[in-house]
Amino acid sequence: MPKFDINLFIAHLSIDCVVFGYEKGEIKVLLSKPTYVKGFWSLPGGYILKTEGIEQAASRILTERTQLKNIYLEQFKVFGSRERNIENEQKELIKAGLKDLDADIFDEEVVSWMTERFISIGFYALVDIKKVKPQTGFLEDSLVWYSLKEIPELTYDHSFILNQALEALKRDLDIKLIGFNLLPEKFTMKEVQHLYEAVYEKSFPMNNFQKKILALNTLERLEKKFTGAANKAPYLYRIKK
Amino acid sequence: MPKFDINLFIAHLSIDCVVFGYEKGEIKVLLSKPTYVKGFWSLPGGYILKTEGIEQAASRILTERTQLKNIYLEQFKVFGSRERNIENEQKELIKAGLKDLDADIFDEEVVSWMTERFISIGFYALVDIKKVKPQTGFLEDSLVWYSLKEIPELTYDHSFILNQALEALKRDLDIKLIGFNLLPEKFTMKEVQHLYEAVYEKSFPMNNFQKKILALNTLERLEKKFTGAANKAPYLYRIKK
Repeated sequence: MPKFDINLFIAHLSIDCVVFGYEKGEIKVLLSKPTYVKGFWSLPGGYILKTEGIEQAASRILTERTQLKNIYLEQFKVFGSRERNIENEQKELIKAGLKDLDADIFDEEVVSWMTERFISIGFYALVDIKKVKPQTGFLEDSLVWYSLKEIPELTYDHSFILNQALEALKRDLDIKLIGFNLLPEKFTMKEVQHLYEAVYEKSFPMNNFQKKILALNTLERLEKKFTGAANKAPYLYRIKK
Repeated sequence: MPKFDINLFIAHLSIDCVVFGYEKGEIKVLLSKPTYVKGFWSLPGGYILKTEGIEQAASRILTERTQLKNIYLEQFKVFGSRERNIENEQKELIKAGLKDLDADIFDEEVVSWMTERFISIGFYALVDIKKVKPQTGFLEDSLVWYSLKEIPELTYDHSFILNQALEALKRDLDIKLIGFNLLPEKFTMKEVQHLYEAVYEKSFPMNNFQKKILALNTLERLEKKFTGAANKAPYLYRIKK
């Protein structure tokens, strides 16, 4: 592991990412298990290089973690209350855990820098879950998809950040055509509907929903999906180029 | 003027505020004229004390400028591209202008701190323009309401920040009942409509608009507005407690 050089990064400012995927009717989130504290999970995140913009930083952090390029990213809120990084039991655990790592890399100065007050910029990402190859990053033991209904205990205020991301996604999905980023390139109308139902946690009447989506005039109808029973097979759609 | 102590603040992070008011059918924005650079105006802003949260900082900055408490504030976007504070002609002007101020207060170290790369958190505020008593703050010569149609040249990327705030306001006005923060306590239905028309820069059919607003069931009808001609006078409304 290369020496962690705190001088390369902007102090006191971090990025936390809520990566949403969609699989089998469920919204999933990519969570990371930190190497330095047991019993907690975390949102994947990182710091901002002095030489890069914040959007670039978020892209870099997520390309490292997912092996995907051109990820759909949306900055949704900054978390900067005075209380979010206060000295408490969890912070003590984190400090102790960091000091137990390689002392050449995580000396007093680095540990103190990493556990100072941080203001965090929240980004959410929408990805096609099948294309993601999760790859652990800096200080991560593992990186795993969790269904929204089974989120484990998260460090600091990360549960709150996750909830805020979900609220932002609900708001944005209704005004922008971003939901399709969660689907594969070709999809059936039923899959679109199930995706919306998973986000809003309620069901929509089928005919109305399809009419509304088709009225947006952004989808292109393709061949029927191969199911073996051709005349009952649903059509496939994709976003118009 | 007290010594400006950079150690009290978080480095590299600032707050820029777009304060919206509404008067005579027009949306207005509060702009400040910096003491240290001629020919430009600026969004009122400031730095974040190490001891305060970002929302607290924005409140403090705006209470200083408006003499209002409990201002309606909405964090809408962070501006952190690498290019936003680059060395250019404008930055040279700003550096020179700062050095021309009191050299005891703005020494090399302070000027360099103030002109380093800054990532700025954008907040918009909605105020009842009649209640605001603009009061110049740190490094401001004057603080003046400008109609959206007559915005002068702004420093750095402040025009972009202002446009982004306006986009956020349009989005939010449609999903949250925040527009009333721009009106006095009691208002007529026509005033509500004119406010919406000023934000969206288009007119709405009167009957539909009133029906839509009343259906929200958040307004309370009061006495008629005194106009001298009682039977033609419109009703006054206010937000239900």
